[in-house]
Amino acid sequence: MDNLKISAAPSIRRLPSYLYIIRNMQREGEEYISGTAIAQELNLVSVQVRKDLSITGIKGHPKKGYPIEPLIGAIEHFLGWDSLQDAALVGVGNLGSALLGYQGFQLHGLNIAAAFDANPKKIGTTVHGIKIMNAKTMDIQIRNFGLKIAILTVPSTEAQNAADTLVSAGIEGIWNFTSVKPKVPDRVVVQNEDLSSGFALLCIKMRNR
Amino acid sequence: MDNLKISAAPSIRRLPSYLYIIRNMQREGEEYISGTAIAQELNLVSVQVRKDLSITGIKGHPKKGYPIEPLIGAIEHFLGWDSLQDAALVGVGNLGSALLGYQGFQLHGLNIAAAFDANPKKIGTTVHGIKIMNAKTMDIQIRNFGLKIAILTVPSTEAQNAADTLVSAGIEGIWNFTSVKPKVPDRVVVQNEDLSSGFALLCIKMRNR
Repeated sequence: MDNLKISAAPSIRRLPSYLYIIRNMQREGEEYISGTAIAQELNLVSVQVRKDLSITGIKGHPKKGYPIEPLIGAIEHFLGWDSLQDAALVGVGNLGSALLGYQGFQLHGLNIAAAFDANPKKIGTTVHGIKIMNAKTMDIQIRNFGLKIAILTVPSTEAQNAADTLVSAGIEGIWNFTSVKPKVPDRVVVQNEDLSSGFALLCIKMRNR
Repeated sequence: MDNLKISAAPSIRRLPSYLYIIRNMQREGEEYISGTAIAQELNLVSVQVRKDLSITGIKGHPKKGYPIEPLIGAIEHFLGWDSLQDAALVGVGNLGSALLGYQGFQLHGLNIAAAFDANPKKIGTTVHGIKIMNAKTMDIQIRNFGLKIAILTVPSTEAQNAADTLVSAGIEGIWNFTSVKPKVPDRVVVQNEDLSSGFALLCIKMRNR
């Protein structure tokens, strides 16, 4: 299963950028979009785009390309983004604040419904329209909200503690921005986000020019 | 070439997390680390880890694993992270500020040497120890500093304009956090960072549990 996940991951990672381009074309009044057009926008080869899109189950017309509305529907449905998913954000530091203010998430099915911090100076304040709650009440609040997804942006030293609380509160998926990989039960999914991975790719591409 | 890049990209993306784990082991006084140990930390299969590490040219000992110091050296050298690379950051909004304060970059060979914004209220202020300069002087400052890498965190509507200025100032690599894919000459590398791509993976993994 792990192997399967790994092999499909690059395709899944590209779907949000496809969605962005396809939505722009729709706004311009287009009804069809070709794999080649998407590929050009993203500097990919078109066979890659068609292969990636095929994992959503959609089929393109040989000449016209993909019908835009069903294509958007297929990607959103595949990703589970056809309805907004509520999430908790834990740790309102620099990165946490930035994510609270990130406009793109709502477009991608993600709604940050609650934010937590341990700093008394932050508790009760409002950041980008979201009231910061006391991290000590996290367990009960997450249960009350019925949240299943958490975004982890605490300092690395706090990551395992916070993850333990999230798991006991019923969280099923953790989007982890810390450099620690928290240990969680098998039923909980952890997606590690390493900001340096994109920089690694940039460095290699610059060297290979 | 594009195809080659795409097929190696997932391996390259994982190298920074390997580096993090290997450095931790080194701090604990270990001299060797096995692919299996790294794999366990990151919930990967060990054959994947060994395959990823092989792109740096390092070879492990059949029983002891990889010698830690040469392994760190091989990864850093492969990524070009054995010396700090200076970069400009353009657009000191929420995300830009967060990146200025991100401690992990220095560990990964990245030093943000200059930051620019167009907002008169921000120009001249200091954010996480870096003085914000007037975006209008970006061209000349980037030349003065001799910078080759830029981090693009402006609003999407400003992305193409900013990229044009960066290119004319001699920037060779753009780490792009906007949702626009700026058009640049072939000699300039653009690495698009889409924060939603990690969320897409989390959603799929939660569904596939």
